[in-house]
Amino acid sequence: MIRLTFSTSRRTQLLPVTRAVAEAIAALPPWTGLLHIHSPHTTAAVTINEQADPDVASDMEHALDSLVPWNDHYDHAEGNSAAHIKTTLVGPSLSVPVENGRLVLGRWQGLYLCEFDGPRTTRELWLTPMPS
Amino acid sequence: MIRLTFSTSRRTQLLPVTRAVAEAIAALPPWTGLLHIHSPHTTAAVTINEQADPDVASDMEHALDSLVPWNDHYDHAEGNSAAHIKTTLVGPSLSVPVENGRLVLGRWQGLYLCEFDGPRTTRELWLTPMPS
Amino acid sequence: MIRLTFSTSRRTQLLPVTRAVAEAIAALPPWTGLLHIHSPHTTAAVTINEQADPDVASDMEHALDSLVPWNDHYDHAEGNSAAHIKTTLVGPSLSVPVENGRLVLGRWQGLYLCEFDGPRTTRELWLTPMPS
Repeated sequence: MIRLTFSTSRRTQLLPVTRAVAEAIAALPPWTGLLHIHSPHTTAAVTINEQADPDVASDMEHALDSLVPWNDHYDHAEGNSAAHIKTTLVGPSLSVPVENGRLVLGRWQGLYLCEFDGPRTTRELWLTPMPS
Repeated sequence: MIRLTFSTSRRTQLLPVTRAVAEAIAALPPWTGLLHIHSPHTTAAVTINEQADPDVASDMEHALDSLVPWNDHYDHAEGNSAAHIKTTLVGPSLSVPVENGRLVLGRWQGLYLCEFDGPRTTRELWLTPMPS
Repeated sequence: MIRLTFSTSRRTQLLPVTRAVAEAIAALPPWTGLLHIHSPHTTAAVTINEQADPDVASDMEHALDSLVPWNDHYDHAEGNSAAHIKTTLVGPSLSVPVENGRLVLGRWQGLYLCEFDGPRTTRELWLTPMPS
């Protein structure tokens, strides 16, 4: 398992990580199958979406914050229940097809680490190569 | 990797694809493990849900459209930010158990391609067999 | 494939299942790779989130119920469309890293079976070990 570390700079932030992930697996012996990408956090998720126009990410950040407001009569004493809820809605992990050691994504697809309780300096993604 | 192509006929449409996926993998040497199903798009997702009563799919379409309205002060110039957001909420891919080359789903479960920016004639699903 | 059975006691309930899953796989020959966890239902999902403070789960239950109200002019005659929608939003399955036969989760992460149409006595999770 490869562990990558990322820093985030805002409370809610969709951070593009495609290049970091692609570079990390380029150092491995090539395989064909899947790459599993896991966020080990409970207030940060992982997703795939467009990265050509940065407005897509900012529209997504605003929409997710508006779906799950930060202040909404939550009981959890840490005050970050909204971040936990968004993490479960987006999802803690996903798998991506790999051919000969390279990510096989759709033309407009890119990977995002989804920060929902930032800023943080020690966000991780755990990568598990899965040969088919 | 097997690439299947689908047409959709409405902007938001949960298209049943269980039979197409099952037929595609029936042509392969049988394996036991998982089948990974990937939507290579940023405005179309994949999910599993009931397919016995078509009202379930239409209720889901209406509820997703109502959660994330099409017009909501988005910045993205293409005007389809709502489709991007719904794709991330539902998810771009999933894996399904397979035994002897056949999908192992719950009694009421079926696969859906979730169109959020249709109609389109060239939606794809990418299938990756993963023997355990 | 290992099939675990769970009972739920409320309509919407995030039931912690980390220990049950960990014990089930401890009985298997150890492997490194992934564990795929599948909910074979259309009104119950699976997620990962914090389990240290039970208020996180109850805040998530309330927020999901408030995002997708139980009564909202649905057509599906069974009356449980909200449960179907929440199942697709949270997701029917996920994979978790495994090293030497043990789940590798983040410090605060735990597995939940997400009941959205309970109570039920026969909810299942299907576990598929995937060596890398």
